[in-house]
Amino acid sequence: MSNIKQRPIGVFDSGVGGLTNVRALMERLPMENIIYFGDTARVPYGVKSRATIETFTAQIVDFLLQNEVKALVIACNTIAAVAGQKVRAMAGNMPVLDVITAGAEAALQTTRNGHIGIIATSTTVNSNAYARAIHSRRPDARVQSQACPLLVPLVEEGWLDHEVTRLTAREYLKPLLADDIDTLVLGCTHYPLLKPLLRQEAPGLALVDSAITTAEAAAQALAAADLLNAANPAPDYRFYVSDIPLRFRTIGERFLGRSMEQIEMVSLG
Amino acid sequence: MSNIKQRPIGVFDSGVGGLTNVRALMERLPMENIIYFGDTARVPYGVKSRATIETFTAQIVDFLLQNEVKALVIACNTIAAVAGQKVRAMAGNMPVLDVITAGAEAALQTTRNGHIGIIATSTTVNSNAYARAIHSRRPDARVQSQACPLLVPLVEEGWLDHEVTRLTAREYLKPLLADDIDTLVLGCTHYPLLKPLLRQEAPGLALVDSAITTAEAAAQALAAADLLNAANPAPDYRFYVSDIPLRFRTIGERFLGRSMEQIEMVSLG
Repeated sequence: MSNIKQRPIGVFDSGVGGLTNVRALMERLPMENIIYFGDTARVPYGVKSRATIETFTAQIVDFLLQNEVKALVIACNTIAAVAGQKVRAMAGNMPVLDVITAGAEAALQTTRNGHIGIIATSTTVNSNAYARAIHSRRPDARVQSQACPLLVPLVEEGWLDHEVTRLTAREYLKPLLADDIDTLVLGCTHYPLLKPLLRQEAPGLALVDSAITTAEAAAQALAAADLLNAANPAPDYRFYVSDIPLRFRTIGERFLGRSMEQIEMVSLG
Repeated sequence: MSNIKQRPIGVFDSGVGGLTNVRALMERLPMENIIYFGDTARVPYGVKSRATIETFTAQIVDFLLQNEVKALVIACNTIAAVAGQKVRAMAGNMPVLDVITAGAEAALQTTRNGHIGIIATSTTVNSNAYARAIHSRRPDARVQSQACPLLVPLVEEGWLDHEVTRLTAREYLKPLLADDIDTLVLGCTHYPLLKPLLRQEAPGLALVDSAITTAEAAAQALAAADLLNAANPAPDYRFYVSDIPLRFRTIGERFLGRSMEQIEMVSLG
């Protein structure tokens, strides 16, 4: 059996968006090997039922455990919201990080007035997972959530600075801005690509990018468990997907911020 | 074995949009039993690869054949574009209707100048299936296609008469209107819900609604094969889906135009 520190971190998402987390991990933990799984054959999860999301998630975690990962990063807000407990039960003692826990903690460190806004998919909002994660840490915080189902397709269309995207964001942000939130959590892996536009439409708000905060949480958890890979000058990055659709590489590389050399397709379920 | 005329028509789609076809069939063929399958656990197909779409389609057709249907209606443009031949190979001598063939024929009956515009998902456009279906019937027709990936999520958000939808449609229609098309095929089952808005944004164009044209083609094919159900005062409508997500019934009934009494969930694959 190989040295456990050499093993990869397993990162997974319902699709391509979790590559924003891989990018943040590459930058924060440049010595770590990473294996990514994106369930592109069945994306998006944000409109599916809890039972279906749990079934699909268990298949992904099985695949990553077979690949001998040393830690798991749930890069998908919907999976974290709906199936986080299931993943932790399957992972045993292994560190499991997720974008919702990390985002909630970062939001609490950021807010001054204790009023936090969340934008996310419908399923994430309906799960109320961010509010629970925030309130379990600070019961007097005020959380207001807004489902934004159009933002993912707008990002995937590449309309990152388009009038349509601006109007859509403005409509979604209206109820949050009417409240006096001072912090806005980008509760979906696609949203960091809209940061410039969101900064313009919500000036004065601190934006919490959960890809960055999750990478920081992963660094701390690996250090605490003595699992950091200290000497690995040429880390190995492997990308697995359940489908390789048209434009996959183009969109993926937009999220990852660099080229993807090795993409392999595997069937689950 | 039951009388073959009593058997249901099998209608299928990647999700909920094919219910616009069921609605048109109920109106055109009110004596027919109908069984619908929507692959809501894996929707949308329009962004997936050909191989994945073929695999998923074969599973759906197997399910409908086990339910002893007498005819198949491919209500999904993406499936018709990519896996229509596969469905016909599996169906043997059974009538198989599809939205692309029916839409192409209706467009040719409608156009006066022979210049036809198509709006559809990316996969349907990239398959070039409408152009092939039109050119095989009339080689001198001119076909211009435009992928409109944002229209499905806009319909599902319910923004049927929203400024954002109007601007999005205007942007997508611009290259088609610059050409001098006189007929616009709504090449996706979601688009009929945008007819009022599209009529305003593309005045003077004839809109081809493939749900209606497919129902007409089904009526003709069943009559030709002597398979029409002539006496059935209380037809049976069964709706099967692979997932029942939040708001499924609400969205489904918007497409179907009436209530759905019997919805059952089945797992495929």
